[in-house]
Amino acid sequence: MSNSSKDLDHLIELMAKLPGLGPRSARRAVLHMVKKRALLMTPLADVLAEVAVTVRECLNCGNIGTADTCDICQNPKRENGEICVVEEVSDLWAMERSHMFKGRYHVLGGTLSALDAIGPDELRIPRLLRRVRDENVTEVILALNATIDGQTTAHYIADQLGDVRVSTLAQGVPIGGELDYLDDGTITAALRARKTL
Amino acid sequence: MSNSSKDLDHLIELMAKLPGLGPRSARRAVLHMVKKRALLMTPLADVLAEVAVTVRECLNCGNIGTADTCDICQNPKRENGEICVVEEVSDLWAMERSHMFKGRYHVLGGTLSALDAIGPDELRIPRLLRRVRDENVTEVILALNATIDGQTTAHYIADQLGDVRVSTLAQGVPIGGELDYLDDGTITAALRARKTL
Ligand SMILES: [Zn+2]
Ligand SMILES: [Zn+2]
Repeated sequence: MSNSSKDLDHLIELMAKLPGLGPRSARRAVLHMVKKRALLMTPLADVLAEVAVTVRECLNCGNIGTADTCDICQNPKRENGEICVVEEVSDLWAMERSHMFKGRYHVLGGTLSALDAIGPDELRIPRLLRRVRDENVTEVILALNATIDGQTTAHYIADQLGDVRVSTLAQGVPIGGELDYLDDGTITAALRARKTL
Repeated sequence: MSNSSKDLDHLIELMAKLPGLGPRSARRAVLHMVKKRALLMTPLADVLAEVAVTVRECLNCGNIGTADTCDICQNPKRENGEICVVEEVSDLWAMERSHMFKGRYHVLGGTLSALDAIGPDELRIPRLLRRVRDENVTEVILALNATIDGQTTAHYIADQLGDVRVSTLAQGVPIGGELDYLDDGTITAALRARKTL
């Protein structure tokens, strides 16, 4: 490296660890920020410092936010009896961008995987079962990725849930497709055409 | 947007303004940082805040650093009578990565351009002429991009410099090529084979 400051070198080194950036794009990003110090670098430093201190997982659903309970779980309008189960926070965000789902979420934190020795207790499955028992849940929508592990996990959860209506995203989700890569319209269509398991 | 926190939304929005990142990669970068809070997010927030306050242009050469005079201009070992003239700080960094040049730099801040009405006074050309007069300069190496504006600027500067030896990067720099995109070996070769103008 050896640019002209240890701090600048360190900044570039850390930026290069972000997914999608490498050393070259990290250098360009840093030079861009230096040129836009007041409009970009300083606000980014401020909000990053704030988020680094405040960000946490929602104790209820596993979404991330800046309070013990996330904005969605705190919003009484979202308590409509529907819980949408997703693998990761990025999937929750993808669902939110479709503006179709008005209920609450449950973020598993992954899928069951025999290979990686991930069982129900490694995920937020026990907490999901408790929520379905304790909250006034009428429908659980399983919005898991259309991968083998995702579908195995969906069937495992459906088996555990018993009486409550369980549906799954249907039309529009391509085989092997991950929610976060789909366009918002596809997600909307899949949610509209969801089928009961 | 509407993730589950205004701060998170704001962070994603600002990250998406970095070159090479868009909304999707900004979201992925933020989720990655959240997962690596102690190892990545907090250190990045710290160094970004530090750099946002301290970064400045070197009053002598135009490089960026965290003091009024950059590390290279402060280093007496780099005062060997050679000044390498580049367009942008990113070009200076590219030269440094080649580890070939042991002198000092001068960052013009662009090129002459009739179209954009950029004359010598819009660049750091008057300051370069002063440095060549005042410092003990024996050779000026013009490491400008192999573009029309870059070469026009090189010839303009060579004309102004008078007695001092002026050379330019030669072998290896492709036509239309920008220094920052070249591999380090190419830059090394071009510097070795530099020719007197
Ligand atoms: Zn929540
Ligand atoms: Zn300097």
